[in-house]
Amino acid sequence: MIDRYSLSPMKELWTLNAQYQRWFEVELAVIEAYEEVGIAPRGTARTIRRKVRINVPAILEIEKGTHHDVVAFVKHVVTQLGSEGRFFHFGLTSSDVVDTALSMALRRSCRLILEQLEELLQVLWNLALRYRNTITVGRTHGVHAEPTSFGLKVLGWYAMMMRNRDRLERALEDVSFGKISGAVGNYAHVDPKVERIALEKLSLRPIPVSTQIVPRDVHAAFVQTLALLGSSVETLAVEIRHLQRTEVLEVEEAFKEGQRGSSAMPHKRNPILSERLCGLSRLLRSYALVALENVPLWHERDISHSSAERFIFPDATGVAYYILVTLKHLVEELKVNKETMRQNLDITGGLIYSQRVLNTLIGSGMDRETAYKIVQELSKRAWESGENFYHLVTSDPRITSVIDSEELAELFNPEYYLRNIDRIYNRFKEVGGCEE
Amino acid sequence: MIDRYSLSPMKELWTLNAQYQRWFEVELAVIEAYEEVGIAPRGTARTIRRKVRINVPAILEIEKGTHHDVVAFVKHVVTQLGSEGRFFHFGLTSSDVVDTALSMALRRSCRLILEQLEELLQVLWNLALRYRNTITVGRTHGVHAEPTSFGLKVLGWYAMMMRNRDRLERALEDVSFGKISGAVGNYAHVDPKVERIALEKLSLRPIPVSTQIVPRDVHAAFVQTLALLGSSVETLAVEIRHLQRTEVLEVEEAFKEGQRGSSAMPHKRNPILSERLCGLSRLLRSYALVALENVPLWHERDISHSSAERFIFPDATGVAYYILVTLKHLVEELKVNKETMRQNLDITGGLIYSQRVLNTLIGSGMDRETAYKIVQELSKRAWESGENFYHLVTSDPRITSVIDSEELAELFNPEYYLRNIDRIYNRFKEVGGCEE
Amino acid sequence: MIDRYSLSPMKELWTLNAQYQRWFEVELAVIEAYEEVGIAPRGTARTIRRKVRINVPAILEIEKGTHHDVVAFVKHVVTQLGSEGRFFHFGLTSSDVVDTALSMALRRSCRLILEQLEELLQVLWNLALRYRNTITVGRTHGVHAEPTSFGLKVLGWYAMMMRNRDRLERALEDVSFGKISGAVGNYAHVDPKVERIALEKLSLRPIPVSTQIVPRDVHAAFVQTLALLGSSVETLAVEIRHLQRTEVLEVEEAFKEGQRGSSAMPHKRNPILSERLCGLSRLLRSYALVALENVPLWHERDISHSSAERFIFPDATGVAYYILVTLKHLVEELKVNKETMRQNLDITGGLIYSQRVLNTLIGSGMDRETAYKIVQELSKRAWESGENFYHLVTSDPRITSVIDSEELAELFNPEYYLRNIDRIYNRFKEVGGCEE
Amino acid sequence: MIDRYSLSPMKELWTLNAQYQRWFEVELAVIEAYEEVGIAPRGTARTIRRKVRINVPAILEIEKGTHHDVVAFVKHVVTQLGSEGRFFHFGLTSSDVVDTALSMALRRSCRLILEQLEELLQVLWNLALRYRNTITVGRTHGVHAEPTSFGLKVLGWYAMMMRNRDRLERALEDVSFGKISGAVGNYAHVDPKVERIALEKLSLRPIPVSTQIVPRDVHAAFVQTLALLGSSVETLAVEIRHLQRTEVLEVEEAFKEGQRGSSAMPHKRNPILSERLCGLSRLLRSYALVALENVPLWHERDISHSSAERFIFPDATGVAYYILVTLKHLVEELKVNKETMRQNLDITGGLIYSQRVLNTLIGSGMDRETAYKIVQELSKRAWESGENFYHLVTSDPRITSVIDSEELAELFNPEYYLRNIDRIYNRFKEVGGCEE
Repeated sequence: MIDRYSLSPMKELWTLNAQYQRWFEVELAVIEAYEEVGIAPRGTARTIRRKVRINVPAILEIEKGTHHDVVAFVKHVVTQLGSEGRFFHFGLTSSDVVDTALSMALRRSCRLILEQLEELLQVLWNLALRYRNTITVGRTHGVHAEPTSFGLKVLGWYAMMMRNRDRLERALEDVSFGKISGAVGNYAHVDPKVERIALEKLSLRPIPVSTQIVPRDVHAAFVQTLALLGSSVETLAVEIRHLQRTEVLEVEEAFKEGQRGSSAMPHKRNPILSERLCGLSRLLRSYALVALENVPLWHERDISHSSAERFIFPDATGVAYYILVTLKHLVEELKVNKETMRQNLDITGGLIYSQRVLNTLIGSGMDRETAYKIVQELSKRAWESGENFYHLVTSDPRITSVIDSEELAELFNPEYYLRNIDRIYNRFKEVGGCEE
Repeated sequence: MIDRYSLSPMKELWTLNAQYQRWFEVELAVIEAYEEVGIAPRGTARTIRRKVRINVPAILEIEKGTHHDVVAFVKHVVTQLGSEGRFFHFGLTSSDVVDTALSMALRRSCRLILEQLEELLQVLWNLALRYRNTITVGRTHGVHAEPTSFGLKVLGWYAMMMRNRDRLERALEDVSFGKISGAVGNYAHVDPKVERIALEKLSLRPIPVSTQIVPRDVHAAFVQTLALLGSSVETLAVEIRHLQRTEVLEVEEAFKEGQRGSSAMPHKRNPILSERLCGLSRLLRSYALVALENVPLWHERDISHSSAERFIFPDATGVAYYILVTLKHLVEELKVNKETMRQNLDITGGLIYSQRVLNTLIGSGMDRETAYKIVQELSKRAWESGENFYHLVTSDPRITSVIDSEELAELFNPEYYLRNIDRIYNRFKEVGGCEE
Repeated sequence: MIDRYSLSPMKELWTLNAQYQRWFEVELAVIEAYEEVGIAPRGTARTIRRKVRINVPAILEIEKGTHHDVVAFVKHVVTQLGSEGRFFHFGLTSSDVVDTALSMALRRSCRLILEQLEELLQVLWNLALRYRNTITVGRTHGVHAEPTSFGLKVLGWYAMMMRNRDRLERALEDVSFGKISGAVGNYAHVDPKVERIALEKLSLRPIPVSTQIVPRDVHAAFVQTLALLGSSVETLAVEIRHLQRTEVLEVEEAFKEGQRGSSAMPHKRNPILSERLCGLSRLLRSYALVALENVPLWHERDISHSSAERFIFPDATGVAYYILVTLKHLVEELKVNKETMRQNLDITGGLIYSQRVLNTLIGSGMDRETAYKIVQELSKRAWESGENFYHLVTSDPRITSVIDSEELAELFNPEYYLRNIDRIYNRFKEVGGCEE
Repeated sequence: MIDRYSLSPMKELWTLNAQYQRWFEVELAVIEAYEEVGIAPRGTARTIRRKVRINVPAILEIEKGTHHDVVAFVKHVVTQLGSEGRFFHFGLTSSDVVDTALSMALRRSCRLILEQLEELLQVLWNLALRYRNTITVGRTHGVHAEPTSFGLKVLGWYAMMMRNRDRLERALEDVSFGKISGAVGNYAHVDPKVERIALEKLSLRPIPVSTQIVPRDVHAAFVQTLALLGSSVETLAVEIRHLQRTEVLEVEEAFKEGQRGSSAMPHKRNPILSERLCGLSRLLRSYALVALENVPLWHERDISHSSAERFIFPDATGVAYYILVTLKHLVEELKVNKETMRQNLDITGGLIYSQRVLNTLIGSGMDRETAYKIVQELSKRAWESGENFYHLVTSDPRITSVIDSEELAELFNPEYYLRNIDRIYNRFKEVGGCEE
């Protein structure tokens, strides 16, 4: 993870010091289990905790000789101990410690991400409520389609993020597995009871079958969830970038006092946060690939996943955290230009109401093909000549003969398109936080 | 999907004919809803169903003019109808039909995949039971580590596939959403009640907020699940390829009467199914990427996802189905060479028991560093000189002075490593199907 | 490759029939080499060519028994032969035939793609020339930046596609390698001279070191080139989609007589080709991944790449071909709205000229920071109040005191920004096809 | 890039300090060009270089206010200058500086990688020469195929790395483009001559058409090259992992004095470097994806690529550099067990010579189908019963009636398979460094 996008407390989670502390916690939990089952004398873990100081540079120094990080860690600890040192790492394989500690880190990272997601959900909900009845044009293919509500657009983001919350909550469950089952996962040197007790102390569950490690499909599922979260964040970011383009300008990212959009063009105000979110979401997609390639390891494990994971776990969780924090601030401070939305609504001269005209013609008994042709013909004329579509419609006898002028006028009323909005909002009533 | 790997009934699911049939079902469900809410006369849907014959080439012919597949489909149907044609596609936008029908197809494909996964689970479980107590060497880094049970290895596959079943069952829930909400998702022309009734008839639920389409995070989650399933299948396939290599030869894929392993080398028996599964799992990973890139569409939808989905949905579901069927057969007919497993166990001359020696030395009161050095020294000698490790251990006074010869002999008993196997199996008791 | 996007002659290249024909050509080339070196009697190849009819269903029928496609193919041929059949496939391993034939197919596909790329280059060049002096606004971050020429934008596409042509021409060289070197690449049964002669007849070169197959880095490089071509096509497609959005509308894809943009909204004209190109480019990216994963095969080859290649080679070349053909038509028929470009240029009220004001202030001796602050302040006011930037600039004494009014007016002349355009175009003079 | 795998001098290339120094060099090159064309007084660049000290923390402090890194950098420099400050960054847009400096960094990184690749090529060549005539079994599908030479295997790696060198040399050319062409690439404020002079001083060429930036297909091509390099490295690493597995043990990574293979199993010697290389190659593949997604930017540039590039450029070049250095050491110190190779050659009891028997039967006039069936039948018996294939062949009258016993014995001579090896090596004679 690069400094520029590292945020506390996620940042601290992935330091070497934090890692060694987690390893130490796992080792102690096992010793406490040993105490319970009568292998180690009562108080051993407590004594060890009291005597030991984890010193990162000292461990790295030892590793230069051992070429094995856990061996170096154990050496570092044991040299600070007396006879109780015999119980430290006793019966364990490195991966019992490393992989269980990794689950602790991933679970914690997942919780931090969930916390930010909750905050994001709240600001999205607030935004959706505030603009529930703000009319804006809905666009498909980048082309004006029909009127809709800006709040509904935001509510769609909210709903998407709710799904991501569900996925992350499952992921949290799914990464909460540890293993203290030995070199090939068969409890050759440690009783399953020791695993159960130790993991319980760490609030983890034993993975039903391990090899030397927790199988990597578990981790891949988590990274996939982050990738999908990223692509969802990108959905919002792309929308904001579109809405901030000069010709549209319906929303703007906050522009800070003193901020400069360009070293050359003093007038520039760019949606740089949204653009950044798009770039970072690409990274999240790529990490998912690596995590998937890490799944099919050889036999009872090969260690090829390890080097890759040293990059992708800090980066994937760090980036996911960063984009949620950034998006939350962006949404909170988003400037929404209701007037511009209303002006943009009208630039097609009424073409966006063409389906209502079509449906009303059909509803009046005209067959679908005839109706479609009439409306398409007028649309085409309006499009190509710049004539106002409403005028064309209200002057065409094929239409005026079946729809009276009052009804026709009503067909061009944008409010009509919002009449079912509340029923969509009501689907989220139970969510809470909803005050109008 | 290419013919070579297309299997029924998955294959039929993705034909154009099946697609149009699904579209027709969606249109009819909406008309039935119209009947219920009083928009269309009772019996309209029944009449339409009776009158209409879906003709694929005829639709394709119309599409050449319209450049729009749904418009062509609707034209094709309406020309077969009388006045009831007014209600066909009335108030709908193309995506109401296309996307809802897509959910029907994805759900069905997911069920087909789940069925095969169930069958695979059963054969894995049987295999795991049959070889529960078959001793084999556990390998880490490709290097002999410690004895374990071949059944346990299989049980690990079983457990991994159980997790995939859970993921697919969630995915099944997650893709069971349709939408009949109009051009920009705000029910401008169709009442939410119509959507509710129509989708209920199709056993789908309304997605809480739609745009013109069902948001693509939903579909991406499904394709991700297939990608992870693929990487899990690859895990098994890689293991089988390893175990079938000439020097190991602990298992073999069935070799059919008349089959030829090579056009040049008449002796060859290759794990070609497992190799094929590895190649196909790469495809599944790649589809997940496409599905993720399809998420951040513009505004209320752009159609860029559509062309890509024409490839990845049939291919991803088709490949997932194919690999499960293939793996099931492979596992069912797998030849397991217990004697070779036992022979391979001994090729290190007892080195695989080094940790037991180490632990027993520590258990006897020796400090960890000293014990490790003694055992590593003897291991090194055995490794480099080819001397038998057991002989070295039983001749070293540093060891024999603290462990008596009977206990030493017991340390080299592979059965010891299986003593906790049953407790792992017991974790799956509730699964059922477990009969020995 | 799916029918919908399959175009001739690329489509025919990947039929089973074409594949068997290529296999047959490779076998015959080897026999001709055998004739030259005296292993087979003169005329053997000619006789075989005369006697044999390749029958696809017959081969597939045999394969059901052999479970090996080349063995089936050889059987099919040999049964049509007399004693000369002894020389057919003599000394060869399947991959000698399959991989050499694959190179023939890839080379041919690469040439087909290059042909389309040449045509695309021509239409891009024509477009770039036609709009060389058409003023439009340049946009960065989606926000108006400075005036530029629409032709220059197109010239950038042209230059990018020139780079892709260079890459494809290298790729063409790189895939033009065959191998007739036996089961493990050491010419155990065939003399290197036979390989040289046979490949020369097929216009291929021997790969310097083969295993059983041509190493897969060669193929991966080709697929990577297609992926980059795809992302380049996407660059153009994204731009067109942006320029066709309702608020911008500076270009439009051709809209055919009878075409329907939407089943519901008769007014819609959507950039559907460009959207399709974006979707398809995602596929090309994903194939590159698969091709990369296919590189690290086991030992002298494993066959895991084969199943994946059955998908990705037809699909990657087929999609690449399709997108070039589609883009060429799109560009040829693109409607360019010069007037709209000019109108859009002015919607910021002159803000796009801010850098010229800034530079002129600095040029007049003002220090950079002071100048930036003045211009940013006026820009901000213009932006927020809607006041015209030109009026603000020409009314500010800090500016008017150092720049006279005539010079100020000239600073807001868009023509100024095009004065170096010709010098960029001139860089491509040598390219040819350039007629004004 | 994480510390653990960061190596000098690649590591220093990507520090913030080095980046600012490059920016400074670009700015000075432009000012020198200004001096040449008469815009700035002679000596301006020299004065600025003398006066300015780049201070990273000071720049970061300013950036907190500007939210724009180049603006902060320029401020930092200008405050150290007098009136000559007017010429600093004059007429430039941020990307002129940033993107040109980026090309400097990428070119430098590419050269560093090429240097390591050259060294790797040398050690591979040496290894290939040393074991040119060392007989080992060639394996396909993981199954023994035919005898070959270990040196030839290495020569295949060498040839693959030669191709990667070619690709990197092209890539070096391809990233050596800068741009000083202003906000939208049309030289609005800077004459093309200034660009030409400035870039020449930096040993870069002007990209023929730029937007605000150098188009990202250029960068993607470079990252793709690194990804393919990674997959090639993985090819070697996978092979070494296979050859070091306990049952094969034909090669071993060096095991250092004091090194520990496992915290639990004192006997373990694992191919951990090769495993690490496999993991890291996955990362390289994933970066290529991000680079491809960075290509289709909006209009004259959007900045979404920037955040992603802050990760992938240091990581991709850093990892590529690391894996080459690591692989070079690994190969240099690789322990090759010729005796084990010879022993493994025989474990199939002669089956690996089956094709020679087949070909000799066909050569003697027997038809292919009959010959194949005889040899396959004997192979099958040998395989299933464990009987020696040579004995079976020499006892079968169908064979002995057409091949005499001396010739038969010769068919089982592994040396035969090496008789064309030298002709393969000779293809590389011109490479140099080849001395035996």
